[in-house]
This record gives sequence, structure tokens and C-alpha cells, in this order.
Amino acid sequence: MNNIYLDHAATTPLDGRVFAAMRPYLGPQFGNADSRYSLGRSASLAVLSSRDKIASLIGGSGGSLYFTSCGSESNSWALKGVCAANFGKKNKIILSAVEHPSLLRAAEDMAAFGFKTELVFPDSSGIVRPEAVERALNRGGAAFVGVMYANNETGVIQPVDDICRLCRTAGTFFFCDCVQAAGAVPLRCGFADGISLSAHKFYGPKGVGALWIRRGAKLGRLVSGGQQESGMRGGTSNVAGIVGMAEALSLACEGMEAESIRVAKVRDVFLNELFSRLKDVRLVGDRASRLPSNANVMFGGCRGEEIMMSLDGRGVCVSTGSACSSGASKPSGVLLAMGLSEEEAASCVRFTFGRDNDEEQAVRAALLTAETVAALRGE
Amino acid sequence: MNNIYLDHAATTPLDGRVFAAMRPYLGPQFGNADSRYSLGRSASLAVLSSRDKIASLIGGSGGSLYFTSCGSESNSWALKGVCAANFGKKNKIILSAVEHPSLLRAAEDMAAFGFKTELVFPDSSGIVRPEAVERALNRGGAAFVGVMYANNETGVIQPVDDICRLCRTAGTFFFCDCVQAAGAVPLRCGFADGISLSAHKFYGPKGVGALWIRRGAKLGRLVSGGQQESGMRGGTSNVAGIVGMAEALSLACEGMEAESIRVAKVRDVFLNELFSRLKDVRLVGDRASRLPSNANVMFGGCRGEEIMMSLDGRGVCVSTGSACSSGASKPSGVLLAMGLSEEEAASCVRFTFGRDNDEEQAVRAALLTAETVAALRGE
Repeated sequence: MNNIYLDHAATTPLDGRVFAAMRPYLGPQFGNADSRYSLGRSASLAVLSSRDKIASLIGGSGGSLYFTSCGSESNSWALKGVCAANFGKKNKIILSAVEHPSLLRAAEDMAAFGFKTELVFPDSSGIVRPEAVERALNRGGAAFVGVMYANNETGVIQPVDDICRLCRTAGTFFFCDCVQAAGAVPLRCGFADGISLSAHKFYGPKGVGALWIRRGAKLGRLVSGGQQESGMRGGTSNVAGIVGMAEALSLACEGMEAESIRVAKVRDVFLNELFSRLKDVRLVGDRASRLPSNANVMFGGCRGEEIMMSLDGRGVCVSTGSACSSGASKPSGVLLAMGLSEEEAASCVRFTFGRDNDEEQAVRAALLTAETVAALRGE
Repeated sequence: MNNIYLDHAATTPLDGRVFAAMRPYLGPQFGNADSRYSLGRSASLAVLSSRDKIASLIGGSGGSLYFTSCGSESNSWALKGVCAANFGKKNKIILSAVEHPSLLRAAEDMAAFGFKTELVFPDSSGIVRPEAVERALNRGGAAFVGVMYANNETGVIQPVDDICRLCRTAGTFFFCDCVQAAGAVPLRCGFADGISLSAHKFYGPKGVGALWIRRGAKLGRLVSGGQQESGMRGGTSNVAGIVGMAEALSLACEGMEAESIRVAKVRDVFLNELFSRLKDVRLVGDRASRLPSNANVMFGGCRGEEIMMSLDGRGVCVSTGSACSSGASKPSGVLLAMGLSEEEAASCVRFTFGRDNDEEQAVRAALLTAETVAALRGE
């Protein structure tokens, strides 16, 4: 790839080792994991061992890990499934205002059944303060609290341990969207009643995700069906995808510590280079409590969209907002929730680094970005 | 493969040409279809052209085709989404008693929100009579009617055109699960307000399906999320899966007429051979109104499960009931609904033929089955 790909928060390339693990299940091992003859049983064993592998990597022995088709399904399922189990009892949903659209819109969907949503806003650094969640909990009636582990646009890591403790005290289900965090930071399920994962964010295939739910938590089904996933999620198992997800998470966890230090350094080289070349630029979101891969940068007097398009022409892939909401060219809801003005929010670009980036690329990307911005500013 | 695989209703091997079409999207073309730089736009174009291809193959210009993760998701979405749109207005669901578990359990799930389900039973040949659906409609209050195109266990094809007309008259949404029919018989969406498809039933990949919905029909979301699928189904597009699905359906439709005649002949060779060698055997379900691939056979005095396990040892893959319910060793709900006793239902085996079977295999499979049954009967 000649491009410099700096959009790893949108998706990551499929790791060659992951593809190799998937390959037999896209070929001779095509059995349905629910079939009881040997071809089916070997598919079923592959699903089983993938489930065990992932559960052990996330410290999930205290609950059940269900395979899904993506992070959005996992998030929708958690919210709608917990609401269904609380229908007629509790009717409030508490979400941080910087949650992924899959949770925000799932909550909107539940309004048809009488559920009400209360949003908790982050401070200007993008952090959702536990006290703010506590105030919402104290108003009572909440069935579900959702605060993500790390934000998809800013990479800001939330104080989820503290928020979880508050939810425990209040007896409310605490859900933590870990789609951006999984494979990047060490996860232990202990901090939540439910977490979501998505394989393609950690060099696995698109079309497969997972939902982990603490034992004893009440959850309705989203995708109904047969006996798959202990009767909780129908559909013929996507065996190749599931095997790929387990392999990808395993590889990501194996190299996590070293890669985390390395990628943070690559990102910081980029930021230092960029900041040394441009005036009126700043990092958006807390710098310390942040994923090592993320640099969300505000370029005063420029539109992020123009920077993105211009960098595309120079072989650099970056994004404005998240890919999930990029269809709309509205300013990012996440950045507005942090108190940025519409103009400020529209001048931000997200750079997210990954395994395929090195310091040389970081320097080159910073140079190209600085040139682009200078040109757009007419400097 | 040395095995004789006779379980194509459970799943089919991935066609090599389909894999080749998918391969770039599992490699260098890894972009997120929602990203707006060139790598993303080429993924987006692949999704777009796959959508157009499938819509045109099913005559779906009068509605929207949404990609999902499987047939069960499509079925769950249709039922739950139509119910959500009717909440507080109509609260009845009408389903044939031989529907797939994904619809039957989705209806059970909606009971939590006050929806009631009325089952319409088929006659002893497995056919759901339009008059029976009409009687249920006349009792009023129905939001959703679901009768599948072809049954997954017996292959019996239902009079869906007539049932659709009755639903139109009653102003009720008519859903038709086409998971078993797609790729096997010519489909025109005109006969329903919604239909579901699953790629792995027609030599495509597991983990991808579709839901087609007539324009103007009211549908709530199931998997919420970003702007994907016109804002109706969240989640990063499974580009490789989607491309594979379109290629697979295209190939299936191309060769459909010839393959349909060929596979029916292979099946009939099997049945004639089998019936000439064994007493007390009969075909279950209507013979004429039936998928060309399906032979559901009752073996008097034998347990289907024992036949299946014994044939597995001889390299022949067959099933009892559907894979989706095979986790449970309860007798098939489909066969019981047709009026078979528990003992009769437990003595049935499903043989479903496909592209990789020829007449020589059919003869061999019949021979092995006859030997197995004779041995189990102590003959």
C-alpha cells in the first residue's frame, strides 16, 4: 500500500495471519456449526474454542460471550435487550452524550415503547464525570446506563470503573461499549455488566462482533432464532468470522504492551512535527486519558472536510467525525457535546495510527498535512 | 471432499468464484464503506453495485434492500420492526406453525410488549391453506402475517401469492421468509411486503443476509447505528460478505433452470433407489409443490437420529429437523404441526441435494441409507 492509512479507528486491514486462520472455513470446512455430523462438529468446535479464547482474553469468566455481526448489533442488543427485560418496570435510559450512534439511536428507537433517555454531557476535555452520571442515577427509574470505554472520535478514555461502582450501588445495568478499546488496552470485564467488541477494529474481519453479559443480568433477545449462542442469538454461526475474531484479538493482546508504546510514539512524532509547522492547531480531548493511537486535531480557519479530501489526493487517509456518521456532513455530535462551536467542530480532523504506520510515515503525513492546511489557509 | 454432502438446506459450500470475488475485500480493499476517501469510496461502490445486482435479481425495484448478517436477523427485524411500528395500534401476529424459529421466537419475544401470536397450521401435506390464513385475518387486529416461501425441513412450497392477496385486502403486512427459496426458484418480490434472504444457502458466505421491504411499509429498526443502509441498519458494512452474496445469487440465478431440473433428477434417482430397496418408507410433505432439492423421508421403526449418526460414520451428511433446532433433540415442530405423531416425526431424515451431488452419489447414498436402515431394523 502506497497510501498512508491513518484511519484505524474506522477500520483496520485484515491481518494475514487472521486470514490464514479463517481460510479453511471459507473452503472445505464449510459445515453448519449446528449440524451434528463430523463436518458440523468441527465447525462447532472452532466456534467453541474461539469463544473460550476471547472470553479468557477479556477476563469474561463471570458471564456469557455471545457472537454478533458487529459492534452496532452488540450495542443495540444490550440496550434494547435490557430495556425489554425492564418494560413496565423502569423506563429510563442514561447515556453519555458522546456514545456511538448505535446506542443513541437504539435509545431513540425505544421511545416508541415509552422509554425516555437522559444524556450526560462530558466536560470540555471529553471526559464524562462520574458525578454527572450519579446525578442522573439519583433521579431514579434508570434501567440502563451506557458510557463507552474510549471514544471513537477523540480516543478519550472514560472513568468507567468509578461509573460502574455508582451503577452497582444504584442497582442499574452498566454497559460499556469497548469497540475502540478492545485490542488496544487491556480489558477486564469486571468493570461492567455488559461490553461490546468488534473484530474489524483490531485487524480482524468485518461482519463479526461480540457481546459479553454478566451472569444473572436480564437480557431480551434482539436477533431471535434457533439454539445458537445458547438460544440468545439466532443465525447460522459465521464460523470463518468468529475464528478470525478470536485469532485477531489473540494477536492484538499478545503484542499489546509493545505496540501501545510504539504507536503512541508514532502519533507523538506526528503531533510534534505538525505543531512545529503550523500555528493555530490544537489537540482535541484529554491528552493523558486517551488511546495511544488517536490524534484529533483542530485546525483553526480550515474545514476538516477540505483537509480530508485534499489529503486523500495526496495518498493520506484520515477522517472527520466517525465513519459511521460521515454520510451526513453535519458537525460531529461528539465534539459539540464537548462544548466546541459548530465552526470549531467542523475544523477538526481525526488521525488514528496503527500497526502499519511507522515514524517515517508519521513525519511524512505531518508534512503533507501542514502543506495542505497552509495552502487552504492561503499562507 | 470424499463425503457425500446431502444437507444443502443447512448450509452450502462457498463457491470458488464467490470466494475469488470476495478476496480483494479481505485484503488490500479493506476500506470502511462509510469513509469518504478513495479507499472507502471503492468499498462503498462495491456495496452499492451488490445491492443493485441483488435487487434486480429478485425484482425488488418497488422497495429497499437492506443488508443484514443472516436470515434470522432479517426475519427478526421484519417481525419486530413491523410490530414496533404498530405498537399501541395492532397487537396480533399471525404465523404459520411451520415458520423458522427466528420468526416463532421473535413473536414470543414481542409478547413482553403485549403482542399475541396466532398460529395457522398446515394440512397433512405441509401446505398452509389460504383459507386458514383468511380465518385468522378475519378475527382482526393483525399487524404482521408471516408465511414462508419454502419450508426448511420439508421443502414444501406455500401458496404465497394467494396469501399475499388476502393480506393486501386486510391491510396487513405480509412477510415471506425466502431463505430456502432464494437461488433455488425464481423470486419476484411482488408477492410480499417483505422478504428475507441468506447468502450461505446459495453457495455464498455465512454471516450475510438481506431484508427487502416494500416502499412505504412502516418498519422500526432492529440493529440501530449510523448512516449505513439508509440509516435503517447500523454497523460497518461487511463488504466481502456483501460482494460474495451478490456474486453467489447471480451465479445461482444464471444456472437456475438447468440446475433445478438436474438436482430434481438426482433427488428422484435417490428416492427411487431407496424406495425400491426398503419397505415402510415414505416421502413427508407434498411431492409436487416442493423444492427440487428436498427429500424428507420417514423410515418406519427407526430413529432418524440413529440413521443420521450411522450415515455420518459412512461419510454421508444428512440431518434430522433443521440445523437451527438440532441442538435440542426434541421431535421437529414442523412435522408435528403437519399432524405426525412424535414417534413418526422422530423417524424422519432430511436429505437435501445440491450442486456437488450427481446421480452416482445419489445411488450410493440410497444404498448406504438402505443398508443402515436395514441394520437398525435388525433385518
